[in-house]
Amino acid sequence: MSIERCVVVGGTHGNEYCGAFLARHWRDHPEELRRPGLDVEAVLANPEAHRLVRRYRDQDLNRCFAPKDLEAAAAGARPGVYEATRAVELKAQLLAGRDPAKVAIFDLHTTTANMGASVVVGKMTPFNASLAAWLQRDDPEVRVYRWVEEGTEPGFLSGVCDNGFNVEVGPVPNGVLRADMVELSRSLVARCLDFVGRWNGGERFAELELTLFEHREHVDFPRDASGAPSGFVHAERQDRDWQPLSPGDPLFQTFTGETLRYEGPAGRVPVFINECAYYEKHIALTLTERVVRRVGELAPAIEGPRASPSAG
Amino acid sequence: MSIERCVVVGGTHGNEYCGAFLARHWRDHPEELRRPGLDVEAVLANPEAHRLVRRYRDQDLNRCFAPKDLEAAAAGARPGVYEATRAVELKAQLLAGRDPAKVAIFDLHTTTANMGASVVVGKMTPFNASLAAWLQRDDPEVRVYRWVEEGTEPGFLSGVCDNGFNVEVGPVPNGVLRADMVELSRSLVARCLDFVGRWNGGERFAELELTLFEHREHVDFPRDASGAPSGFVHAERQDRDWQPLSPGDPLFQTFTGETLRYEGPAGRVPVFINECAYYEKHIALTLTERVVRRVGELAPAIEGPRASPSAG
Repeated sequence: MSIERCVVVGGTHGNEYCGAFLARHWRDHPEELRRPGLDVEAVLANPEAHRLVRRYRDQDLNRCFAPKDLEAAAAGARPGVYEATRAVELKAQLLAGRDPAKVAIFDLHTTTANMGASVVVGKMTPFNASLAAWLQRDDPEVRVYRWVEEGTEPGFLSGVCDNGFNVEVGPVPNGVLRADMVELSRSLVARCLDFVGRWNGGERFAELELTLFEHREHVDFPRDASGAPSGFVHAERQDRDWQPLSPGDPLFQTFTGETLRYEGPAGRVPVFINECAYYEKHIALTLTERVVRRVGELAPAIEGPRASPSAG
Repeated sequence: MSIERCVVVGGTHGNEYCGAFLARHWRDHPEELRRPGLDVEAVLANPEAHRLVRRYRDQDLNRCFAPKDLEAAAAGARPGVYEATRAVELKAQLLAGRDPAKVAIFDLHTTTANMGASVVVGKMTPFNASLAAWLQRDDPEVRVYRWVEEGTEPGFLSGVCDNGFNVEVGPVPNGVLRADMVELSRSLVARCLDFVGRWNGGERFAELELTLFEHREHVDFPRDASGAPSGFVHAERQDRDWQPLSPGDPLFQTFTGETLRYEGPAGRVPVFINECAYYEKHIALTLTERVVRRVGELAPAIEGPRASPSAG
């Protein structure tokens, strides 16, 4: 098994400028992404939302790729819903006729939360686990959030193939290019492509430890009778993504001056604290649990003479 | 002369959440804004844009208040342009039939730029100069940007009366409530209302020094043939609002890795560096010049027995 094709995607959310503009740049200057023996393409996923400087036109494109939704859209069940139609087109473009097991997608996102350098993984395949662990070994600041909600399918764009994930960097406002976040996205993409290139080249990746933050639950803002937020993330919790909560910690403050405290189990770790796009999804932050896993050796992509440890 | 009415406005730009949500809050809880002898009202200026989580629906409301534009809209010349019609309604609501010389408006804005606590002044009346100088005497971190472009009228909402200005805080992404920025906006509004209350109460405000940053020119991003940004604010300039530029300083970096340097006169001070909403206005940053002025004594609002220095 090897990866034949990598797609670097930006602008799945049109107002997440760092990824969108990098995708536009790489579409016109593909040389930076090239790796030997690998078909690499850069794709601006939602050009219509990007033009409008919005997350999406009709619905969140990064929730449109569950198989049943793609089937319904392909059968014409969602006429006029731009992202539903676009998802069907994109699936074909992303796979380019190849076996989904031999394609990897790195989908670039930004967040207004202080997430730093992180990846959001839907499918924890051996390839994804090894790549995430390898990124973390190189830079322990790379955080891995595993988004698995029981009984649901996130419908991520990166889920149309077996390999790859969302690359998530922040904080940066929507509609803004920040040099530090452009650089961070670029560097994470380079490291992912390097990994694929080395694996394809026959390198064996040893057993490693992987620290994961596994999804537990979403927490909404306090809201008034009209449904509008009646408070906001407490000053003491703002920007403290990845730092564990203890019962009694201030979580929200209201416009009338009240402090609302966390009353759940100890050791939950909040992520996506105060992410702009989640106000409408009724998510003020997401609670995760820190889990450390052993990731087994990733056997070389190519068996045979090139598979010796010295081949990398 | 005294100020009879103060209006605290938020959500002139619907996605600038701190001011918009404070205005909603104060509309329902006006007691926080009350000052003796003063009619104070909180107004959510652009409810339609706020509902859409956008700066505006059809056009920037904070550029709709030039007298000729208000006249044209009132005469029905801008049918279907929500903000043009809304500006005419708002002018009546803001003034509430009073003499514009006796009304003050504090219009709350936020920016993605690292502007800290600042005020943006259109009309430098004696009242505005004294208030700005008084805010600065209390807290030297309060910066004052005087937006005067030769031959143009900014058309600010706060310009429908003679007194008041835009209160501008940042950095904060659009569509996000940050505790620190809510608190900063709230504290600036309280200080402005306190000033009005004390002046109305007969206090004499002594001569003070005022440091102003006067508008000189806007600078656009580097752009490609399609008009899209081909680069972004240089890492060394990002977040350095209010810090003077020297010729040769890095200003932008391009996606292809080039550094573009500042080549203008020495001593220009950039503000609104990388403000989200100005991408479409072709403004990457604005150059100002630092000027120190003496602001004469502001005579008491009320002449007579209450005007003695001990009356405040």
